[in-house]
Amino acid sequence: LTAPGTQVVDIPSGLPATVSSPTADDPRLRRLALNQKTIERWSVPEAVAGCVRTGLEAIGLWREAVQAYGLADSARLVADAGLRVSSLCRGGFFTSLDDAAWKRALEANRRAIEEAATLGAECLVLVVGGLATGSRDLPAARTRVAESIHELLPHAVEHGVRLALEPMHPIYTADRGVVATLSEALDIAERFPVDAVGVVVDSFHVWWDPQIDSQIARAAGRIASVQLADWITPLPHDALLARGMLGDGHIDLRRLVALCDQAGYTGDIEVEIFNADIWAADGAAVLETIRRRFIEHVS
Amino acid sequence: LTAPGTQVVDIPSGLPATVSSPTADDPRLRRLALNQKTIERWSVPEAVAGCVRTGLEAIGLWREAVQAYGLADSARLVADAGLRVSSLCRGGFFTSLDDAAWKRALEANRRAIEEAATLGAECLVLVVGGLATGSRDLPAARTRVAESIHELLPHAVEHGVRLALEPMHPIYTADRGVVATLSEALDIAERFPVDAVGVVVDSFHVWWDPQIDSQIARAAGRIASVQLADWITPLPHDALLARGMLGDGHIDLRRLVALCDQAGYTGDIEVEIFNADIWAADGAAVLETIRRRFIEHVS
Repeated sequence: LTAPGTQVVDIPSGLPATVSSPTADDPRLRRLALNQKTIERWSVPEAVAGCVRTGLEAIGLWREAVQAYGLADSARLVADAGLRVSSLCRGGFFTSLDDAAWKRALEANRRAIEEAATLGAECLVLVVGGLATGSRDLPAARTRVAESIHELLPHAVEHGVRLALEPMHPIYTADRGVVATLSEALDIAERFPVDAVGVVVDSFHVWWDPQIDSQIARAAGRIASVQLADWITPLPHDALLARGMLGDGHIDLRRLVALCDQAGYTGDIEVEIFNADIWAADGAAVLETIRRRFIEHVS
Repeated sequence: LTAPGTQVVDIPSGLPATVSSPTADDPRLRRLALNQKTIERWSVPEAVAGCVRTGLEAIGLWREAVQAYGLADSARLVADAGLRVSSLCRGGFFTSLDDAAWKRALEANRRAIEEAATLGAECLVLVVGGLATGSRDLPAARTRVAESIHELLPHAVEHGVRLALEPMHPIYTADRGVVATLSEALDIAERFPVDAVGVVVDSFHVWWDPQIDSQIARAAGRIASVQLADWITPLPHDALLARGMLGDGHIDLRRLVALCDQAGYTGDIEVEIFNADIWAADGAAVLETIRRRFIEHVS
């Protein structure tokens, strides 16, 4: 393995001889999408320009960045660039047990649905939220997730937006996402029409799961988004920024993507990495590294 | 919730009025065991003295501390003090894919089995180990775990030592324990006689699991050890020292222990906390806090 954390951006001369240098129209890159959070400093126009320059066909957008540039302007920019919007991140955080706070969260999600529709996003990613403040009642928080999807469904259907329920690594169960496994996400998603509610398969969140093979197979038709980041050790100090560059860690990414392909997934594959070292690096160099690593470790 | 990380040792005057102060022969403390790693600075004699002074009936020992004091002397000391040895920590780390290294690991585990027998420990806790060095093959590492148990079984049976397979939180899958769920641990344990191979239910490792209710029920007769620590947020920087004092975090400990009781578990309940702040605190004060918190949050 590449030594973790030592080098977040490849030096081109260090490219293994067995991997031919990717070009802008390389078919192996056809499904690669940049989740814009991977290069956090880039605005929507910078991220779009980076994707176009690198020959990518899709981008995953974040609401904060979209709002900063303007929703209508962002929609026009990606459309003019001919990019698919592989996902909009993110809705969710609707596990409050306080009814007034819960209703506010649902309203905020309705706005997110509208934004996803305006952008023509393939799906709206839902990070469901952790335990309610002061609560240790995990079953109650999980029930709230299903109730929230039920409440949001009509608005999502009306706007033609697919909701994408994201199971999160158990490191985040307490404070970010009480849905901890793909199995649990599917238990909820399967109560709703397949076109309206899908799931996210994010390598960082699900790679450890002993049931992952059977659950990805079960998810056939439900996979709304595939996202990639590596699991690196030692784990970076900030749990929220613990994700590694493809190939720097322990996940067999090619195997995970193959499982999704076998389940019939033909959509984009986003690279979504939250990592302080990567955020500090030059954006164009990071995107170059992603291109190379995607071929070495995924496609 | 108690504000995490602000106070690892209770100030007695802060005791809630609803909880009567525990006394040395309090029946609510009958199953409380100190895992000696919780007070890392204590030698075996200090930990034994602490348990006796506090009225505890059981102690979980660590091999390093036992070896430092001497195996025979440690065995004599706990026997003379009338303490049960609720567990010996730990064997395992047998996921190497290199045959010579694997055989050395198995030999080291045979020594651990003999030590557990000498101490009269209820079980030998097995932390199975992470991915083999340089490998991303998680299924292969998991297969190695079952093979290792198979290899160790005759020695364990001969010495009357129960092996206790510990599922570990997915934060440790890469580098410490590829068995990530109780379900997976039971899939392995159930291939072997119930008296020879059990499982550990450690709150820190399993609390997030959406299948935990059904899997603890399934574990009836297989639960060899119950260990408690809380999940605190924000997660401490060192993932190995991320566990919190009972009641400082997000786990419904009483519910988890009740599930074990309903599955027929009648053994000791160890408090095992790895936390730099707790390790830095006065040992006697930590043990006092554990006594109070055990009543408030568990028994």
